[in-house]
Amino acid sequence: MPHEQYQACIDACTRCAQACRHCAASCLQEHDVQKMTDCIRLDLDCAGICELSVAYMSRGSEHSRQLCTLCAQICEGCAEECARHQAQHCQQCAQACRDCAQACRQMAA
Amino acid sequence: MPHEQYQACIDACTRCAQACRHCAASCLQEHDVQKMTDCIRLDLDCAGICELSVAYMSRGSEHSRQLCTLCAQICEGCAEECARHQAQHCQQCAQACRDCAQACRQMAA
Amino acid sequence: MPHEQYQACIDACTRCAQACRHCAASCLQEHDVQKMTDCIRLDLDCAGICELSVAYMSRGSEHSRQLCTLCAQICEGCAEECARHQAQHCQQCAQACRDCAQACRQMAA
Amino acid sequence: MPHEQYQACIDACTRCAQACRHCAASCLQEHDVQKMTDCIRLDLDCAGICELSVAYMSRGSEHSRQLCTLCAQICEGCAEECARHQAQHCQQCAQACRDCAQACRQMAA
Repeated sequence: MPHEQYQACIDACTRCAQACRHCAASCLQEHDVQKMTDCIRLDLDCAGICELSVAYMSRGSEHSRQLCTLCAQICEGCAEECARHQAQHCQQCAQACRDCAQACRQMAA
Repeated sequence: MPHEQYQACIDACTRCAQACRHCAASCLQEHDVQKMTDCIRLDLDCAGICELSVAYMSRGSEHSRQLCTLCAQICEGCAEECARHQAQHCQQCAQACRDCAQACRQMAA
Repeated sequence: MPHEQYQACIDACTRCAQACRHCAASCLQEHDVQKMTDCIRLDLDCAGICELSVAYMSRGSEHSRQLCTLCAQICEGCAEECARHQAQHCQQCAQACRDCAQACRQMAA
Repeated sequence: MPHEQYQACIDACTRCAQACRHCAASCLQEHDVQKMTDCIRLDLDCAGICELSVAYMSRGSEHSRQLCTLCAQICEGCAEECARHQAQHCQQCAQACRDCAQACRQMAA
Protein backbone atom coordinates (compact mmCIF):
# COMPACT_ATOMS: atom_id res chain seq x y z
CA MET A 1 0.00 0.00 0.00
CA PRO A 2 1.55 3.29 -1.11
CA HIS A 3 0.83 5.19 2.11
CA GLU A 4 2.81 2.73 4.27
CA GLN A 5 5.54 2.20 1.68
CA TYR A 6 6.20 5.94 1.77
CA GLN A 7 5.91 6.38 5.53
CA ALA A 8 9.60 7.00 6.29
CA CYS A 9 9.72 9.69 3.63
CA ILE A 10 6.38 11.18 4.74
CA ASP A 11 7.77 11.46 8.28
CA ALA A 12 11.03 13.07 7.12
CA CYS A 13 9.16 15.60 4.96
CA THR A 14 6.76 16.36 7.81
CA ARG A 15 9.60 17.04 10.24
CA CYS A 16 11.43 19.13 7.64
CA ALA A 17 8.40 21.29 6.84
CA GLN A 18 7.84 22.00 10.54
CA ALA A 19 11.53 22.76 11.10
CA CYS A 20 11.53 25.17 8.14
CA ARG A 21 8.35 26.96 9.28
CA HIS A 22 9.77 27.26 12.78
CA CYS A 23 13.21 28.36 11.52
CA ALA A 24 11.70 31.08 9.30
CA ALA A 25 9.63 32.44 12.19
CA SER A 26 12.60 32.29 14.57
CA CYS A 27 14.89 34.01 12.04
CA LEU A 28 12.40 36.90 12.01
CA GLN A 29 12.97 37.28 15.76
CA GLU A 30 16.78 37.27 15.52
CA HIS A 31 18.66 40.43 16.48
CA ASP A 32 20.27 40.68 13.05
CA VAL A 33 17.43 39.72 10.71
CA GLN A 34 19.29 41.21 7.78
CA LYS A 35 21.71 38.30 7.57
CA MET A 36 18.91 35.71 7.86
CA THR A 37 16.92 36.73 4.78
CA ASP A 38 18.33 34.03 2.47
CA CYS A 39 17.61 31.49 5.17
CA ILE A 40 13.99 32.66 5.48
CA ARG A 41 13.49 32.60 1.71
CA LEU A 42 14.85 29.06 1.36
CA ASP A 43 12.87 27.91 4.42
CA LEU A 44 9.64 29.03 2.74
CA ASP A 45 10.45 27.20 -0.51
CA CYS A 46 11.48 24.09 1.38
CA ALA A 47 8.44 24.00 3.69
CA GLY A 48 6.09 24.36 0.73
CA ILE A 49 7.50 21.51 -1.33
CA CYS A 50 7.81 19.23 1.72
CA GLU A 51 4.14 19.79 2.54
CA LEU A 52 3.13 19.05 -1.05
CA SER A 53 5.29 15.91 -1.06
CA VAL A 54 3.50 14.67 2.07
CA ALA A 55 0.14 15.27 0.40
CA TYR A 56 1.20 13.39 -2.77
CA MET A 57 2.66 10.43 -0.85
CA SER A 58 -0.34 10.24 1.53
CA ARG A 59 -2.52 9.80 -1.56
CA GLY A 60 -0.08 7.31 -3.08
CA SER A 61 0.26 9.62 -6.08
CA GLU A 62 2.02 8.33 -9.18
CA HIS A 63 3.93 11.64 -9.27
CA SER A 64 5.44 11.20 -5.81
CA ARG A 65 8.87 10.15 -7.11
CA GLN A 66 9.23 13.11 -9.46
CA LEU A 67 8.16 15.57 -6.77
CA CYS A 68 10.45 14.05 -4.14
CA THR A 69 13.41 14.26 -6.54
CA LEU A 70 12.91 18.02 -6.76
CA CYS A 71 12.14 18.20 -3.03
CA ALA A 72 15.54 16.62 -2.29
CA GLN A 73 17.33 19.33 -4.31
CA ILE A 74 15.49 22.15 -2.57
CA CYS A 75 16.11 20.57 0.86
CA GLU A 76 19.85 20.36 0.10
CA GLY A 77 20.00 24.05 -0.82
CA CYS A 78 18.14 24.97 2.37
CA ALA A 79 20.39 22.72 4.50
CA GLU A 80 23.50 24.40 3.08
CA GLU A 81 22.25 27.90 3.95
CA CYS A 82 20.88 26.96 7.40
CA ALA A 83 24.16 25.23 8.30
CA ARG A 84 25.97 28.59 7.97
CA HIS A 85 24.11 30.03 10.97
CA GLN A 86 24.83 29.20 14.61
CA ALA A 87 21.29 29.63 15.94
CA GLN A 88 19.85 26.37 17.26
CA HIS A 89 16.76 26.63 15.02
CA CYS A 90 19.04 26.90 11.96
CA GLN A 91 21.23 23.97 12.98
CA GLN A 92 18.15 21.82 13.70
CA CYS A 93 16.59 22.87 10.42
CA ALA A 94 19.79 22.03 8.50
CA GLN A 95 19.70 18.52 9.97
CA ALA A 96 15.99 18.05 9.20
CA CYS A 97 16.65 19.20 5.61
CA ARG A 98 19.56 16.78 5.17
CA ASP A 99 17.51 13.88 6.57
CA CYS A 100 14.61 14.80 4.31
CA ALA A 101 16.82 15.05 1.22
CA GLN A 102 18.18 11.58 1.93
CA ALA A 103 14.72 10.10 2.52
CA CYS A 104 13.44 11.70 -0.69
CA ARG A 105 16.37 10.36 -2.72
CA GLN A 106 15.83 6.85 -1.32
CA MET A 107 12.12 7.01 -2.03
CA ALA A 108 12.68 8.21 -5.61
CA ALA A 109 15.39 5.64 -6.36
CA MET B 1 8.41 28.62 22.81
CA PRO B 2 5.29 28.44 20.64
CA HIS B 3 6.51 25.56 18.44
CA GLU B 4 7.02 23.23 21.42
CA GLN B 5 3.95 24.43 23.29
CA TYR B 6 1.88 23.44 20.27
CA GLN B 7 3.66 20.15 19.55
CA ALA B 8 0.87 17.79 20.65
CA CYS B 9 -1.62 19.65 18.47
CA ILE B 10 0.85 19.84 15.55
CA ASP B 11 1.29 16.08 15.75
CA ALA B 12 -2.47 15.41 15.89
CA CYS B 13 -3.12 17.71 12.90
CA THR B 14 -0.26 16.09 10.96
CA ARG B 15 -1.65 12.60 11.55
CA CYS B 16 -5.16 13.75 10.69
CA ALA B 17 -4.10 15.40 7.41
CA GLN B 18 -2.27 12.24 6.33
CA ALA B 19 -5.19 10.02 7.32
CA CYS B 20 -7.60 12.23 5.35
CA ARG B 21 -5.38 12.30 2.23
CA HIS B 22 -5.01 8.54 2.43
CA CYS B 23 -8.73 7.98 3.10
CA ALA B 24 -9.75 10.13 0.12
CA ALA B 25 -7.40 8.23 -2.21
CA SER B 26 -8.55 4.88 -0.83
CA CYS B 27 -12.25 5.83 -1.15
CA LEU B 28 -11.56 6.45 -4.86
CA GLN B 29 -10.46 2.82 -5.14
CA GLU B 30 -13.52 1.40 -3.35
CA HIS B 31 -15.88 -0.82 -5.36
CA ASP B 32 -18.82 1.49 -4.64
CA VAL B 33 -17.27 4.96 -4.97
CA GLN B 34 -20.71 6.51 -5.27
CA LYS B 35 -21.44 6.13 -1.57
CA MET B 36 -18.02 7.51 -0.60
CA THR B 37 -18.31 10.93 -2.24
CA ASP B 38 -19.32 12.83 0.93
CA CYS B 39 -16.41 11.18 2.71
CA ILE B 40 -13.96 12.27 -0.02
CA ARG B 41 -15.28 15.84 0.02
CA LEU B 42 -14.98 16.15 3.79
CA ASP B 43 -11.53 14.49 3.74
CA LEU B 44 -10.29 17.20 1.35
CA ASP B 45 -11.62 20.03 3.52
CA CYS B 46 -10.21 18.43 6.65
CA ALA B 47 -6.75 17.71 5.21
CA GLY B 48 -6.44 21.29 3.96
CA ILE B 49 -7.26 23.00 7.24
CA CYS B 50 -5.12 20.54 9.25
CA GLU B 51 -2.13 21.31 7.01
CA LEU B 52 -2.67 25.05 7.39
CA SER B 53 -3.01 24.66 11.17
CA VAL B 54 0.36 22.87 11.27
CA ALA B 55 1.94 25.70 9.27
CA TYR B 56 0.46 28.36 11.61
CA MET B 57 1.49 26.54 14.79
CA SER B 58 4.99 25.76 13.45
CA ARG B 59 5.44 29.51 13.02
CA GLY B 60 3.95 30.22 16.42
CA SER B 61 1.30 32.34 14.71
CA GLU B 62 -0.93 34.55 16.83
CA HIS B 63 -3.89 33.24 14.77
CA SER B 64 -3.28 29.59 15.68
CA ARG B 65 -6.07 29.44 18.24
CA GLN B 66 -8.71 30.86 15.91
CA LEU B 67 -7.71 28.54 13.09
CA CYS B 68 -7.63 25.48 15.36
CA THR B 69 -11.12 26.30 16.67
CA LEU B 70 -12.45 26.06 13.11
CA CYS B 71 -10.22 23.06 12.40
CA ALA B 72 -11.84 21.20 15.32
CA GLN B 73 -15.32 21.77 13.86
CA ILE B 74 -14.30 20.54 10.41
CA CYS B 75 -12.55 17.50 11.92
CA GLU B 76 -15.70 16.61 13.86
CA GLY B 77 -17.81 16.73 10.71
CA CYS B 78 -15.31 14.54 8.87
CA ALA B 79 -15.11 12.07 11.77
CA GLU B 80 -18.89 11.71 11.81
CA GLU B 81 -19.03 10.88 8.09
CA CYS B 82 -15.99 8.57 8.11
CA ALA B 83 -17.37 6.65 11.09
CA ARG B 84 -20.36 5.59 8.96
CA HIS B 85 -18.16 3.48 6.67
CA GLN B 86 -16.70 0.08 7.55
CA ALA B 87 -13.51 0.38 5.45
CA GLN B 88 -10.38 0.37 7.61
CA HIS B 89 -9.13 3.65 6.09
CA CYS B 90 -12.42 5.32 7.05
CA GLN B 91 -12.39 3.98 10.60
CA GLN B 92 -8.74 5.02 11.07
CA CYS B 93 -9.50 8.43 9.60
CA ALA B 94 -12.49 8.88 11.90
CA GLN B 95 -10.24 8.22 14.90
CA ALA B 96 -7.52 10.59 13.65
CA CYS B 97 -10.16 13.29 13.13
CA ARG B 98 -11.60 12.83 16.63
CA ASP B 99 -8.11 12.95 18.18
CA CYS B 100 -7.29 16.06 16.15
CA ALA B 101 -10.53 17.80 17.11
CA GLN B 102 -9.77 17.17 20.79
CA ALA B 103 -6.17 18.40 20.47
CA CYS B 104 -7.35 21.53 18.65
CA ARG B 105 -9.99 22.29 21.29
CA GLN B 106 -7.42 21.87 24.09
CA MET B 107 -4.94 24.08 22.25
CA ALA B 108 -7.52 26.80 21.64
CA ALA B 109 -8.87 26.73 25.22
CA MET C 1 -23.16 26.44 -9.30
CA PRO C 2 -20.94 27.12 -6.28
CA HIS C 3 -17.76 27.79 -8.27
CA GLU C 4 -19.37 30.66 -10.23
CA GLN C 5 -21.36 31.97 -7.27
CA TYR C 6 -18.09 32.37 -5.37
CA GLN C 7 -16.05 33.77 -8.28
CA ALA C 8 -15.73 37.37 -7.02
CA CYS C 9 -14.48 36.13 -3.65
CA ILE C 10 -12.18 33.55 -5.29
CA ASP C 11 -10.64 36.35 -7.36
CA ALA C 12 -10.19 38.65 -4.35
CA CYS C 13 -8.57 35.88 -2.29
CA THR C 14 -6.30 34.96 -5.23
CA ARG C 15 -5.11 38.56 -5.62
CA CYS C 16 -4.64 38.90 -1.86
CA ALA C 17 -2.57 35.70 -1.56
CA GLN C 18 -0.28 36.82 -4.39
CA ALA C 19 0.06 40.33 -2.93
CA CYS C 20 0.95 38.86 0.48
CA ARG C 21 3.52 36.41 -0.96
CA HIS C 22 5.06 39.24 -2.98
CA CYS C 23 4.98 41.66 -0.03
CA ALA C 24 6.70 39.17 2.28
CA ALA C 25 9.47 38.54 -0.27
CA SER C 26 9.88 42.27 -0.93
CA CYS C 27 9.98 43.07 2.80
CA LEU C 28 12.94 40.66 3.06
CA GLN C 29 14.78 42.83 0.52
CA GLU C 30 14.08 46.12 2.32
CA HIS C 31 17.01 48.04 3.77
CA ASP C 32 15.52 47.93 7.27
CA VAL C 33 14.10 44.38 7.48
CA GLN C 34 13.89 44.66 11.25
CA LYS C 35 10.85 46.91 11.13
CA MET C 36 9.10 44.68 8.55
CA THR C 37 9.01 41.48 10.59
CA ASP C 38 5.39 41.86 11.80
CA CYS C 39 4.38 42.58 8.23
CA ILE C 40 6.13 39.41 6.97
CA ARG C 41 4.54 37.27 9.70
CA LEU C 42 1.04 38.55 8.97
CA ASP C 43 1.61 38.21 5.20
CA LEU C 44 2.39 34.51 5.66
CA ASP C 45 -0.74 33.88 7.74
CA CYS C 46 -2.87 35.84 5.29
CA ALA C 47 -1.51 34.17 2.14
CA GLY C 48 -2.07 30.72 3.64
CA ILE C 49 -5.71 31.22 4.58
CA CYS C 50 -6.50 33.00 1.30
CA GLU C 51 -5.08 30.05 -0.66
CA LEU C 52 -7.11 27.59 1.41
CA SER C 53 -10.25 29.71 0.94
CA VAL C 54 -9.74 29.58 -2.85
CA ALA C 55 -9.39 25.79 -2.69
CA TYR C 56 -12.58 25.43 -0.59
CA MET C 57 -14.63 27.76 -2.80
CA SER C 58 -13.33 26.17 -6.02
CA ARG C 59 -14.70 22.86 -4.72
CA GLY C 60 -17.94 24.50 -3.62
CA SER C 61 -17.21 23.34 -0.08
CA GLU C 62 -19.96 23.59 2.53
CA HIS C 63 -17.33 25.07 4.91
CA SER C 64 -16.49 28.00 2.62
CA ARG C 65 -18.50 30.53 4.62
CA GLN C 66 -16.91 29.62 7.96
CA LEU C 67 -13.41 29.72 6.49
CA CYS C 68 -14.02 33.04 4.72
CA THR C 69 -15.30 34.59 7.95
CA LEU C 70 -11.95 33.84 9.59
CA CYS C 71 -10.09 34.80 6.41
CA ALA C 72 -11.71 38.25 6.56
CA GLN C 73 -10.44 38.80 10.12
CA ILE C 74 -6.90 37.76 9.24
CA CYS C 75 -6.94 39.95 6.10
CA GLU C 76 -8.03 42.94 8.19
CA GLY C 77 -5.14 42.47 10.62
CA CYS C 78 -2.69 42.18 7.75
CA ALA C 79 -4.13 45.26 6.01
CA GLU C 80 -3.72 47.31 9.20
CA GLU C 81 -0.04 46.37 9.55
CA CYS C 82 0.79 46.76 5.83
CA ALA C 83 -0.86 50.19 5.74
CA ARG C 84 1.70 51.47 8.26
CA HIS C 85 4.56 51.06 5.77
CA GLN C 86 5.24 53.39 2.83
CA ALA C 87 6.74 50.77 0.47
CA GLN C 88 4.61 50.27 -2.64
CA HIS C 89 4.36 46.50 -2.06
CA CYS C 90 2.97 47.16 1.43
CA GLN C 91 0.44 49.73 0.25
CA GLN C 92 -0.70 47.45 -2.59
CA CYS C 93 -0.91 44.51 -0.19
CA ALA C 94 -2.96 46.57 2.29
CA GLN C 95 -5.46 47.35 -0.47
CA ALA C 96 -5.62 43.72 -1.65
CA CYS C 97 -6.23 42.63 1.96
CA ARG C 98 -9.03 45.18 2.46
CA ASP C 99 -10.69 44.14 -0.81
CA CYS C 100 -10.39 40.48 0.16
CA ALA C 101 -11.82 41.07 3.63
CA GLN C 102 -14.82 42.81 2.09
CA ALA C 103 -15.36 40.06 -0.50
CA CYS C 104 -15.11 37.39 2.21
CA ARG C 105 -17.62 39.20 4.45
CA GLN C 106 -20.08 39.55 1.55
CA MET C 107 -19.64 35.90 0.62
CA ALA C 108 -20.18 34.72 4.20
CA ALA C 109 -23.24 36.94 4.78
CA MET D 1 10.79 42.43 -10.82
CA PRO D 2 10.14 38.69 -10.55
CA HIS D 3 6.47 38.97 -9.59
CA GLU D 4 5.58 40.91 -12.77
CA GLN D 5 7.90 38.92 -15.01
CA TYR D 6 6.07 35.77 -13.95
CA GLN D 7 2.56 37.22 -14.08
CA ALA D 8 1.34 35.35 -17.20
CA CYS D 9 2.45 32.05 -15.70
CA ILE D 10 1.02 32.95 -12.27
CA ASP D 11 -2.34 33.64 -13.93
CA ALA D 12 -2.29 30.39 -15.93
CA CYS D 13 -1.41 28.34 -12.82
CA THR D 14 -4.11 30.12 -10.81
CA ARG D 15 -6.78 29.34 -13.42
CA CYS D 16 -5.57 25.76 -13.71
CA ALA D 17 -5.65 25.14 -9.95
CA GLN D 18 -9.21 26.48 -9.74
CA ALA D 19 -10.32 24.44 -12.76
CA CYS D 20 -8.81 21.29 -11.23
CA ARG D 21 -10.43 21.87 -7.80
CA HIS D 22 -13.76 22.51 -9.49
CA CYS D 23 -13.38 19.52 -11.85
CA ALA D 24 -12.57 17.15 -8.96
CA ALA D 25 -15.61 18.32 -6.99
CA SER D 26 -17.86 18.09 -10.07
CA CYS D 27 -16.56 14.61 -10.94
CA LEU D 28 -17.70 13.52 -7.46
CA GLN D 29 -21.23 14.61 -8.40
CA GLU D 30 -21.28 12.76 -11.74
CA HIS D 31 -23.75 9.89 -12.16
CA ASP D 32 -20.92 7.44 -12.95
CA VAL D 33 -18.20 8.47 -10.47
CA GLN D 34 -16.41 5.17 -11.01
CA LYS D 35 -15.06 6.21 -14.39
CA MET D 36 -13.93 9.63 -13.09
CA THR D 37 -11.55 8.41 -10.39
CA ASP D 38 -8.35 8.82 -12.46
CA CYS D 39 -9.51 12.30 -13.37
CA ILE D 40 -10.08 13.21 -9.69
CA ARG D 41 -6.66 11.83 -8.67
CA LEU D 42 -4.84 13.77 -11.38
CA ASP D 43 -6.87 16.91 -10.61
CA LEU D 44 -5.67 16.80 -6.99
CA ASP D 45 -2.01 16.41 -7.99
CA CYS D 46 -2.32 19.17 -10.57
CA ALA D 47 -4.11 21.65 -8.30
CA GLY D 48 -1.50 21.16 -5.59
CA ILE D 49 1.53 21.81 -7.75
CA CYS D 50 -0.12 24.75 -9.52
CA GLU D 51 -0.86 26.37 -6.14
CA LEU D 52 2.73 25.84 -5.01
CA SER D 53 4.03 27.26 -8.29
CA VAL D 54 1.96 30.41 -7.76
CA ALA D 55 3.40 30.76 -4.25
CA TYR D 56 6.98 30.34 -5.52
CA MET D 57 6.56 32.79 -8.40
CA SER D 58 4.76 35.35 -6.23
CA ARG D 59 7.84 35.35 -3.99
CA GLY D 60 10.15 35.49 -7.01
CA SER D 61 11.72 32.23 -5.82
CA GLU D 62 14.93 31.05 -7.45
CA HIS D 63 13.36 27.57 -7.66
CA SER D 64 10.39 28.74 -9.75
CA ARG D 65 11.79 27.40 -13.04
CA GLN D 66 12.47 23.91 -11.68
CA LEU D 67 9.04 23.69 -10.08
CA CYS D 68 7.27 24.96 -13.20
CA THR D 69 9.08 22.38 -15.34
CA LEU D 70 7.56 19.62 -13.21
CA CYS D 71 4.23 21.47 -13.05
CA ALA D 72 4.08 21.44 -16.87
CA GLN D 73 4.48 17.65 -16.94
CA ILE D 74 1.77 17.09 -14.35
CA CYS D 75 -0.56 19.51 -16.14
CA GLU D 76 -0.07 17.62 -19.41
CA GLY D 77 -0.97 14.31 -17.78
CA CYS D 78 -4.08 15.85 -16.23
CA ALA D 79 -5.08 17.48 -19.55
CA GLU D 80 -4.82 14.14 -21.34
CA GLU D 81 -7.12 12.39 -18.84
CA CYS D 82 -9.63 15.26 -18.60
CA ALA D 83 -9.86 15.48 -22.40
CA ARG D 84 -11.26 11.91 -22.49
CA HIS D 85 -14.43 12.97 -20.68
CA GLN D 86 -17.32 14.88 -22.28
CA ALA D 87 -18.44 16.77 -19.15
CA GLN D 88 -18.00 20.51 -19.51
CA HIS D 89 -15.92 20.76 -16.30
CA CYS D 90 -13.51 18.16 -17.71
CA GLN D 91 -13.20 19.86 -21.09
CA GLN D 92 -12.63 23.25 -19.43
CA CYS D 93 -10.11 21.72 -17.06
CA ALA D 94 -8.27 20.05 -19.96
CA GLN D 95 -7.93 23.45 -21.66
CA ALA D 96 -6.77 25.18 -18.46
CA CYS D 97 -4.17 22.42 -17.96
CA ARG D 98 -2.87 22.74 -21.54
CA ASP D 99 -2.64 26.53 -21.20
CA CYS D 100 -0.85 26.17 -17.88
CA ALA D 101 1.61 23.61 -19.25
CA GLN D 102 2.48 25.97 -22.10
CA ALA D 103 2.88 28.97 -19.78
CA CYS D 104 5.08 26.91 -17.42
CA ARG D 105 7.29 25.70 -20.30
CA GLN D 106 7.71 29.27 -21.58
CA MET D 107 8.52 30.53 -18.10
CA ALA D 108 11.09 27.79 -17.50
CA ALA D 109 12.76 28.21 -20.92
